[in-house]
Amino acid sequence: MTLRKGVDRSYDVLVGRRILSHLHEEIQRSGAFSSYAVVTDEHVRPLVAEPLQKLLKSHQIDTELLTVPAGEAAKSVTTVVELCQQLVVRGFDRQSLLLAVGGGVVGDIVGFAAAIYLRGIRYIQIPTTILAQVDSAIGGKTGVDLPSGKNLLGAFHQPLLVLCDPDMLDTLPLQARRDGLAEVIKTALIGDPELFALLGREGGGLLDVDSPVLETILVRACAVKCRVVSQDEHESGLRRILNFGHTLGHAVEAASNYMITHGQAVAIGMGVALQFSREWTGLGKAEAEHALSLINEVGLPTEIPPDLDLGSLLAALEKDKKIQSGICHFVLLSKIGHPVIHPIRLGELRRSLEARMNQ
Amino acid sequence: MTLRKGVDRSYDVLVGRRILSHLHEEIQRSGAFSSYAVVTDEHVRPLVAEPLQKLLKSHQIDTELLTVPAGEAAKSVTTVVELCQQLVVRGFDRQSLLLAVGGGVVGDIVGFAAAIYLRGIRYIQIPTTILAQVDSAIGGKTGVDLPSGKNLLGAFHQPLLVLCDPDMLDTLPLQARRDGLAEVIKTALIGDPELFALLGREGGGLLDVDSPVLETILVRACAVKCRVVSQDEHESGLRRILNFGHTLGHAVEAASNYMITHGQAVAIGMGVALQFSREWTGLGKAEAEHALSLINEVGLPTEIPPDLDLGSLLAALEKDKKIQSGICHFVLLSKIGHPVIHPIRLGELRRSLEARMNQ
Repeated sequence: MTLRKGVDRSYDVLVGRRILSHLHEEIQRSGAFSSYAVVTDEHVRPLVAEPLQKLLKSHQIDTELLTVPAGEAAKSVTTVVELCQQLVVRGFDRQSLLLAVGGGVVGDIVGFAAAIYLRGIRYIQIPTTILAQVDSAIGGKTGVDLPSGKNLLGAFHQPLLVLCDPDMLDTLPLQARRDGLAEVIKTALIGDPELFALLGREGGGLLDVDSPVLETILVRACAVKCRVVSQDEHESGLRRILNFGHTLGHAVEAASNYMITHGQAVAIGMGVALQFSREWTGLGKAEAEHALSLINEVGLPTEIPPDLDLGSLLAALEKDKKIQSGICHFVLLSKIGHPVIHPIRLGELRRSLEARMNQ
Repeated sequence: MTLRKGVDRSYDVLVGRRILSHLHEEIQRSGAFSSYAVVTDEHVRPLVAEPLQKLLKSHQIDTELLTVPAGEAAKSVTTVVELCQQLVVRGFDRQSLLLAVGGGVVGDIVGFAAAIYLRGIRYIQIPTTILAQVDSAIGGKTGVDLPSGKNLLGAFHQPLLVLCDPDMLDTLPLQARRDGLAEVIKTALIGDPELFALLGREGGGLLDVDSPVLETILVRACAVKCRVVSQDEHESGLRRILNFGHTLGHAVEAASNYMITHGQAVAIGMGVALQFSREWTGLGKAEAEHALSLINEVGLPTEIPPDLDLGSLLAALEKDKKIQSGICHFVLLSKIGHPVIHPIRLGELRRSLEARMNQ
């Protein structure tokens, strides 16, 4: 699967079991490098990063192993600067290569460091969660949080390569699997009706670590993401469809003080978007119900929790960096696989949400 | 003068007296913006930024006026993050425009902030020193220092527009004029023999605030820089010729603990490069002497100060992020206007410098 964006921006997204055992060949094929660093977090280090470092060493690729703190709180400028300072100390230059091994947070930190270190060096994404494999590792969006909001600083910086190995997901905790499936379901809903049908047949079985369809699902979900971002690298138009469930989802996350996970919040956002799609863009009743029950079957919510403060939710929505002049561009569906950008005034959105929450 | 780099990266570099009085028209022509900030430093604020803010206000463009500390020490991640936090507080979004009003430091800080705020917003460069007008404001290189070295973090982020108004230079201190002339002379030597001839005719008169040729000189110097960077945005090949005098110059600056200014250091670097060009790339004696005496006439040095520690100088050279595998790509001249990239092993360079300093 190749993501193309002009001649200089094409790169491969490789998905498959045991694909990591080919990493050294992919690195050698990608160019000449002066030095290598595997960057990971404390949790992923013993599970994936250390074995990977040994594997690369057996193929004559010597890597430094650098660790950033685990968790969303680490997604700060401070972490990025500290990582860059470690690169300086180790003499990393413009020909060095970084390998980001971890979930979305590690990918964001390493991608942003690679974007700004010496005005940009090359990096490879090796995502270790479903969420990162099908979503955040693909597309070159990198960023960190400021105290006043998430992802406020960042850069578009495309990786040299993305390697998604389903074998790495065996140790993933149940909630992280659920969170990842929220993105997989989103991808199916906006861009792949066949994937949606496959997911529907599996239902709760998708949570099974040994699910035989996992590889197929990841391949198809990555393909949708690649297709969308290669047509629109900078999120000006088409890429907005990836925000299905996310506009409200981000606000739900923020209003809950991040007690609700990203996957749960996106699931809630999709639940509301599916209901809005029934009302406003003609989504069929059976399709909407299918989608809602699939989300519930994998253990994710589809309704805004009644104890969530609507004022905080709307305040968070208004702060969304994609909302301009009081108009929120909501992604809805006309049918499965057919997203529609639907502009809603914030006032109208407020009334709809109030009505829904007071039912 | 238009800098072209693909369809999306072309922008104007406008040079001329009173060009600033057309800024509002240029802004209106450039697109629709949701909000504006003039970002400057404490020194430039009363001299240029406040009058500019009033001027824009008289044309119905309301700007926030934000100040960063003056001086190289301000070129830090901390300053950039604080600036971005001010933008968040003021509700700046992806459609906002920043105007960088100041010297190279302000341009670097604002350019980098524009590169990473919300993954990139638009900005205009309004350089207020000769150095920034003919060099740093053009080409999209932005960056900040780390404690361990200069410009270690940054991004290539092209401005929407660069406006160079010679009228802004009236209040420039003498040393800053000299520093700027070092870059002007460099530009002439690598790319414009006619400009070199013009500079030679003026000599020390170039330091005169009312020099009638200043506008012509700035136009020609900017044209050379535009020509080079539009052919090579990311410094992979041709753009390296801009480093004439700079490879050694940066090391001289660092070895002097920045007691020697950038312009003086570049002048010294050019002095050594001219002598190397005599020895290694066939530069004629008369041409070299012409160039050396021009540099001296504007009050700049051409020799490494005898009290500079050669060990520190060589250590600084070895840390240069452009030096790979012990080979230093020195820019030399075969004649005026004809730069040649000359690879020198660091060991050979060390012996040449030792011989020169022990004379």
